[in-house]
Amino acid sequence: MNIKSYLEERRLQIESTLKQVLPRPEGLLADHINAVRYSVFAGGKRVRPILAMATAEALERNPEPYLPLITSLELIHTYALIHDDLPAMDDDDLRRGKPTNHKVFGEAAAILAGDSLVSYAFELLSDPEIAVDLPDSSRMKILHTVSRAIGPRGMVGGQALDIAYEDRKIPLETLRFLHSCKTGALIRSSVQTGAIIGKAGPQQFQALTNYADHIGLTFQIVDDLLDVEGNTEKLGKSTGGDLARKKSTYPEHLGIEETHKKARDTVEKALEALESFGRQGDPLREIARFIYYRDN
Amino acid sequence: MNIKSYLEERRLQIESTLKQVLPRPEGLLADHINAVRYSVFAGGKRVRPILAMATAEALERNPEPYLPLITSLELIHTYALIHDDLPAMDDDDLRRGKPTNHKVFGEAAAILAGDSLVSYAFELLSDPEIAVDLPDSSRMKILHTVSRAIGPRGMVGGQALDIAYEDRKIPLETLRFLHSCKTGALIRSSVQTGAIIGKAGPQQFQALTNYADHIGLTFQIVDDLLDVEGNTEKLGKSTGGDLARKKSTYPEHLGIEETHKKARDTVEKALEALESFGRQGDPLREIARFIYYRDN
Repeated sequence: MNIKSYLEERRLQIESTLKQVLPRPEGLLADHINAVRYSVFAGGKRVRPILAMATAEALERNPEPYLPLITSLELIHTYALIHDDLPAMDDDDLRRGKPTNHKVFGEAAAILAGDSLVSYAFELLSDPEIAVDLPDSSRMKILHTVSRAIGPRGMVGGQALDIAYEDRKIPLETLRFLHSCKTGALIRSSVQTGAIIGKAGPQQFQALTNYADHIGLTFQIVDDLLDVEGNTEKLGKSTGGDLARKKSTYPEHLGIEETHKKARDTVEKALEALESFGRQGDPLREIARFIYYRDN
Repeated sequence: MNIKSYLEERRLQIESTLKQVLPRPEGLLADHINAVRYSVFAGGKRVRPILAMATAEALERNPEPYLPLITSLELIHTYALIHDDLPAMDDDDLRRGKPTNHKVFGEAAAILAGDSLVSYAFELLSDPEIAVDLPDSSRMKILHTVSRAIGPRGMVGGQALDIAYEDRKIPLETLRFLHSCKTGALIRSSVQTGAIIGKAGPQQFQALTNYADHIGLTFQIVDDLLDVEGNTEKLGKSTGGDLARKKSTYPEHLGIEETHKKARDTVEKALEALESFGRQGDPLREIARFIYYRDN
């Protein structure tokens, strides 16, 4: 399979679904909705919803009827980026080559754009007119999985830990925990959302979760490597930022060569987790390879 | 009935439930959890969960088994207060007589404490081990009602509108819409949560929604009146704040006398909405009266 065209096709499906599901910028709330839409449509590879789609496909279920529900994962990711970029947090001016939300709309509007997105994600996840054939029990499971992943013991907790360690070197074990919360948890729950939609059995669910945890780690390692080796063009944001702020990274702990080895090992483990899946698991396999080999 | 002792009894039940349901400040995330807990336990009358409880009671259902679910409404309210108080928003140093979250923990930690609370509320609302006898369909209905109430066309949208109108006079119609989003929507969904728990029929549900909309408006009018007439002791925050920032208030539009009349009329309409409820609706009735007459 051609992973690039697969990803592009899925990305376009997600773009068009996002356009449909987001509120229109009308009436008194138009400015607010515009601030929300600005960041949702400021680019992005749509990795999280694509993972949910590819996971449903691995379980031989067509993900298309579930797209409006699945795109909520991208809204949550966008909310996290808007808040991470804020002056009080990472204070970033650029994201994917474009001015960050607070640079365009101001700080208050940016905080509220993020706040709206997370609520709206839950509005979609709980909307009875979306993915109508999904049983309530599955929907509840998705809601609980996603909400747990992004709260105090997940994504937001990880970001709080990241902020707390600003300007301090982070021990490797703490760094692992931080990443498993800050970025790993949403990736895991994206795969799990696809697994619930695809009616995975308990063993399949566990295998897919293992896969998700390994690609989550690969993502982070590759991000760290790009930060050291990459350039602004590839990332659409300034590089060297994490080092400049003395944040700890994998290359700092392990050295660049060893970090590359770790990334390759982690991809292998992700692939091993998928052993029981047939050819319909190929998109997930190619995504795992793509995360590391796209730039290396 | 003695409304003061009713409210105090319910408040204590909610306090003790909040202590049980919130994560413990342990391990690496202890500082973050402490920031979350600080604002949850910084006082507050717990009006929203009490409304949900009193509504379930009006439908002859004991709300106690549903308390862990119901307290999520207070977590959402706390999240809104933390974000409203931020320097980029209302820039308040005091809330209920105590330093605001960002004054104690810093701006980044305060943004994240709010972010955690809203996710955690959804974690509770979707937890299958909470309120186990509640059917999934009811739980889904609560989740959809609450998420819709606090998103871009609800609480957060209202706050965005409030920020947009800072330093500008707001037309009365816009002010009504702003309040119906910013504060009204969560109050309405609190009553509706109780109505869903109490298995309200369609007419009861509509009557309770009408009640909620009228007490939501009463709340706002009384808040405006206190801001003009009140003192710091009563509110635990500086008064005259809204006028100082040239925000529009009901007294500004209608004059103080007419605003008092409007508050009394609105209480009457809230009571009329409850006409079909027997004595078990008394707590809701007394709450409606209490909102206005406590200070007038």
